[in-house]
Amino acid sequence: MNYRLVISYLGKFLVIIGICMLLPIPWAIYYRENLLPLLFASLITVALGLLMDHCFNQQEDKGLIRYREAFALVTLGWILASAFGSLPYLFSGTIDSLANAYYETMSGFTTTGASILTNVEVIPKSILFWRSLTHWLGGMGIIVLLVALLSQLGVGANQIFRAEVPGTGVEKITPRVAETARILWLTYVIMSLILAVLLWLAGMNLFDSLCHTFATMATGGFSTRNLSVGYYNPTIQWIITVFMFLAGANFALYFQALRGRTLRGFWKDPEFKLYAAIVLIATLMVAFTIRDLYPFGEPLIRTSLFQVVSIITTTGYASVDFGVWAPTGQLILLLLMFIGGCSGSTSGSVKVGRLRIILKQAANELKRLIHPGGVFTLRFGDRTITDEVCINVLQFFSLYILIFTGASVLLTSMGIDYLTAFTAVASNLGNVGPGLGTIGPAGNYSALPDAAKWLLSLVMLLGRLEIFTVLVLISPAFWRR
Amino acid sequence: MNYRLVISYLGKFLVIIGICMLLPIPWAIYYRENLLPLLFASLITVALGLLMDHCFNQQEDKGLIRYREAFALVTLGWILASAFGSLPYLFSGTIDSLANAYYETMSGFTTTGASILTNVEVIPKSILFWRSLTHWLGGMGIIVLLVALLSQLGVGANQIFRAEVPGTGVEKITPRVAETARILWLTYVIMSLILAVLLWLAGMNLFDSLCHTFATMATGGFSTRNLSVGYYNPTIQWIITVFMFLAGANFALYFQALRGRTLRGFWKDPEFKLYAAIVLIATLMVAFTIRDLYPFGEPLIRTSLFQVVSIITTTGYASVDFGVWAPTGQLILLLLMFIGGCSGSTSGSVKVGRLRIILKQAANELKRLIHPGGVFTLRFGDRTITDEVCINVLQFFSLYILIFTGASVLLTSMGIDYLTAFTAVASNLGNVGPGLGTIGPAGNYSALPDAAKWLLSLVMLLGRLEIFTVLVLISPAFWRR
Repeated sequence: MNYRLVISYLGKFLVIIGICMLLPIPWAIYYRENLLPLLFASLITVALGLLMDHCFNQQEDKGLIRYREAFALVTLGWILASAFGSLPYLFSGTIDSLANAYYETMSGFTTTGASILTNVEVIPKSILFWRSLTHWLGGMGIIVLLVALLSQLGVGANQIFRAEVPGTGVEKITPRVAETARILWLTYVIMSLILAVLLWLAGMNLFDSLCHTFATMATGGFSTRNLSVGYYNPTIQWIITVFMFLAGANFALYFQALRGRTLRGFWKDPEFKLYAAIVLIATLMVAFTIRDLYPFGEPLIRTSLFQVVSIITTTGYASVDFGVWAPTGQLILLLLMFIGGCSGSTSGSVKVGRLRIILKQAANELKRLIHPGGVFTLRFGDRTITDEVCINVLQFFSLYILIFTGASVLLTSMGIDYLTAFTAVASNLGNVGPGLGTIGPAGNYSALPDAAKWLLSLVMLLGRLEIFTVLVLISPAFWRR
Repeated sequence: MNYRLVISYLGKFLVIIGICMLLPIPWAIYYRENLLPLLFASLITVALGLLMDHCFNQQEDKGLIRYREAFALVTLGWILASAFGSLPYLFSGTIDSLANAYYETMSGFTTTGASILTNVEVIPKSILFWRSLTHWLGGMGIIVLLVALLSQLGVGANQIFRAEVPGTGVEKITPRVAETARILWLTYVIMSLILAVLLWLAGMNLFDSLCHTFATMATGGFSTRNLSVGYYNPTIQWIITVFMFLAGANFALYFQALRGRTLRGFWKDPEFKLYAAIVLIATLMVAFTIRDLYPFGEPLIRTSLFQVVSIITTTGYASVDFGVWAPTGQLILLLLMFIGGCSGSTSGSVKVGRLRIILKQAANELKRLIHPGGVFTLRFGDRTITDEVCINVLQFFSLYILIFTGASVLLTSMGIDYLTAFTAVASNLGNVGPGLGTIGPAGNYSALPDAAKWLLSLVMLLGRLEIFTVLVLISPAFWRR
């Protein structure tokens, strides 16, 4: 392991995070808030970043990131980002404990959207802006941004990309990884601009429209209102529903659609079709279970669709308090937490593509029982799924369940009730946000003990970096020469 | 599919079941109970069996069971056995509804041990004997018994064996399957005899010792006392603990030990070592969480060890009401429900061997991330695990979790509370018996709606036949020519 190289790149990465902390400054000026917390946090972060980069930069090794360094850089990068990203909360006095601030920041960067804040409307606007901005930075992958900005990375660039962009192995749009990263970020920026304008036209002020754009495109879920999106008019709820759905699809499809000027790619993508079908069916099922709670027609459809899309894309906004729904309706949402959006989207959880591979492979397994000599190929659209990929997908699902179970048991042993413990882990591991029980859409995570917040911070990171990237750091083989 | 052949063999199978119904007759005479329910049930079952065998027997096809026929025979055989096996309950008036009687019988044959009876001590002894006997017949596999008795089966014998004997693919002890089946059954009978004598010497009457032998060796869990094994003295509890543990190990090891006159095979078997280690660690953890409830020393160790072994082997006996334990202690037991004993044992659930493969494969997956070009072989003792076996094991675990989730959601939609619904499915799918909530060791399944009992009957069958054998019957490929 080339420690110097890793530290040097972590330094570069901190500089970017520190510079991003300056982006809320205009709002602090506009709303006449204290500039010092953000300035001070930015200064510390940038200074330390420059120092790390300067002291450990080795001209001769430039760009030679190998696999080990890539994994260390991504995992440590996220851990550091959440540590320094919590400085604005601490310096402004918005959040007074380290465990709370770290949890809120990790929840932001991992686009979970779980909060320990009980009243977001009294918090300085500039700090709220930083909170929503962490979503947007984490959504497309902050280290992928580094890849996009620095072209001279080695084989590690590819590895960083695979480690940070979610999915079953995103197909590279272009042969060069840095180019792919730039295209994905560009698509992300363009779609964010469109959404911000639409929200503003539909009646939001500029501040709210930007904050909700960040949280929607990143499938995060932080809002600037205590009632979340339930505060806004139906038009805004529809716009956000559509863009949550779009953010849950593979971003490579948008680039292909732009380049080829055709939407055919969407209907040729088996994952997207299944994703759309699940949303449709789940919406009908939810609408059926809550038909007595909301007026029949547009309000019922809007509420059901909004909540289904919000949970399956792992955004976690609430337009109503689904904690008061019948258990069946809540359970459907809980199941959607284990599905998630498409590969190559900003959503979390297991992903539709992986579930599709698991189910198709199960069908093949049954065929093999009937025809023991037969050879059955697994297909994913035009591609053939190798045994290696199949094992990887099944193993991911198994580890996902094992981590879910282990973390839930640990939370329960801290004295947290079953429902809260299990849904908190399901929600945090899937980067969703709200759970059921005391952490439902009307509640928050503030009442949990500090140990639970640290554990859930790790769970969010495992979910966002899709388990292997984090676990590889604790495997003995990683540290062996 | 050769329907005639399947029906003919199902007939032979029903004859065996019908004859077994006569075994409780001596107890009916001894305790001066009504003989008619058992005689009548036996007569119907044998008569129908003979009729099916006679009408559909084809001399020219004799022995030619292929894969499809084997799967149909095993799955339909278990469904039929539970239907006819419930006749003694219905005819004697012990159980008055079909759903209840079918649930109780399926619970018996699948060695689950979940009961809808609220007071077993008032039930005729001959019926209780039949109830315990269903455990013993189902434990080693009733259709494997058929394989052992009929030597002229075709390739299907191998398939029947694999479909009914649990595990990751039990290594054949001898080249001939019928021979292996006979050896396994012989080992099972000998160990049962030893246990029955020990229990009798330790103070049980002959009736109780036989019933508890059946339930212990099959890792079933039905008792003849309302307090389950908690009714008996500590010596009996220790004996049962040891034999539950032995019944949870691979029966092939006993045969090897007898043939080679050495116990070395146990310590060379990685699955057995892990199984013993899990029991030890779980016992210490449980003892720690319940240290205030029972006197320190022998009672605490006995209670912890008994309950851990009872659950991990999926027996489901209770020596105390663990429903009153702290949540952490209960959760450890709940986790053990998802582990189960060893491959080739009479226990249910996922099995230690499968979990070991999943965890070792996860380690390999991490190594592959660090050394992308490397080739990593998965080993299980002396054997190499192929990609095909690895996918099968991971797929089994994934399907196990998907079925667990789906059935739990269905139960919840029937108005059953979360805790009862989820632990009922965990317990029934793992063929354990008790759950938490209203179906805890002090409660039973009688209060559940009929629809829940039918669903859980299917869940028990899926668990006992290890999913694929049942699922293959509903796959379109199975019915296609």
